Amino acid sequence: MSPVPGRSAVEAVLEQLQGEVTAGAWRVGDRIPGEFELASQLGVSRPAVREAIRALSHVGVLEVRRGDGTYVRSGADPRPLLRKVERASLRDVFEVQLAYDVQAARLAARRRTDADLVRLEELLAARAAATGAEEFGAADSRFHLGVVESTGNAVLIEACRFFMRRLSEALSALRLDQAVPEASQEAHQAVADAIARQDADAAGRAAAAIVEPSLAALETLVEGSR
Amino acid sequence: MSPVPGRSAVEAVLEQLQGEVTAGAWRVGDRIPGEFELASQLGVSRPAVREAIRALSHVGVLEVRRGDGTYVRSGADPRPLLRKVERASLRDVFEVQLAYDVQAARLAARRRTDADLVRLEELLAARAAATGAEEFGAADSRFHLGVVESTGNAVLIEACRFFMRRLSEALSALRLDQAVPEASQEAHQAVADAIARQDADAAGRAAAAIVEPSLAALETLVEGSR
Repeated sequence: MSPVPGRSAVEAVLEQLQGEVTAGAWRVGDRIPGEFELASQLGVSRPAVREAIRALSHVGVLEVRRGDGTYVRSGADPRPLLRKVERASLRDVFEVQLAYDVQAARLAARRRTDADLVRLEELLAARAAATGAEEFGAADSRFHLGVVESTGNAVLIEACRFFMRRLSEALSALRLDQAVPEASQEAHQAVADAIARQDADAAGRAAAAIVEPSLAALETLVEGSR
Repeated sequence: MSPVPGRSAVEAVLEQLQGEVTAGAWRVGDRIPGEFELASQLGVSRPAVREAIRALSHVGVLEVRRGDGTYVRSGADPRPLLRKVERASLRDVFEVQLAYDVQAARLAARRRTDADLVRLEELLAARAAATGAEEFGAADSRFHLGVVESTGNAVLIEACRFFMRRLSEALSALRLDQAVPEASQEAHQAVADAIARQDADAAGRAAAAIVEPSLAALETLVEGSR
């Protein structure tokens, strides 16, 4: 029994623990058996059990409560999603980003404060003034995130941050960051204007009109990226 | 120096490594220093470094290549999103699910095969025939997932699986799974019909029409869930 468990031993324990949760043998809120009991049940070392439990607590499936025990927090395992994102085609990630952008514009139109509108106009001005590809890309991203931030939906905000960074990495890996056409300043102004007049449908359409041509161009550019 | 590192030691190392990636000191594709070097740089044990590296490889930030070294896979860290989902209000999760459902219906309308249509009709029939709350809930979820599966977008499929399960857990934790009104069989048939005639706009509207009343009812039911 090595004090530092091997990667494959930890993976195997992790899948067994996740299996108990997925199958419903352990339900949300249940306290799971202790490390010692699990190690002897599974015939593995305690350090391997401990590391597997920690890995599942990092992804929100288990929760270790100090001095109490380990509880099932959720049966929803995000690892299949994370694995798909890692191997995803650009098109697949872009389509999810489009869904976020449209929903964000719709919700922003309903909930934006006056301070949000001032901020969006500042971000638009910074986008118009940006020079050079890198500065422009950063200013463009900040405007898109500004719209999402006006929704007050913390899940949507973090989902967009995560997907936007993945998308930008995927585009630069394929050297396509300059090849995909960028929507005009006017198209971006149209999103801000619809949000300002609280027109959710128009805001959603304006957001879609920004992303859809990029997505169409991308599908032509990268047949091989699927 | 304990052979089994403490949780807080591992967390601290993990944040330091993630910090190097987020700040851009380590870029996508870079090989990071070895365990021994990192342990001595950070003044921590090698097992703590090893476990932190594994935790970041589980979430797709690092990649351990056996017999080679550890590489940066992505600067996009999904942990803030996962933490937000854990603590999210029902409304926030529901609004993201609505974005997925609308986009899924739109894409399904464009890409569905004849086999997809047969499958969707079967799932609708099973939904109509379901008896009892639990069976009905399961049949309803299978239809929604059936629509998403017809998109051929693997990221969207896994994102929906993850969010639907979180949503259903959150609803049952608040004992609201029966309280939120369920859209009619006709409303679900309308989604399938629009997909069948390849009308993306109508499919998106029909999908929104299913979720929006539930979301509105929920906002009335749970003022305190934010």
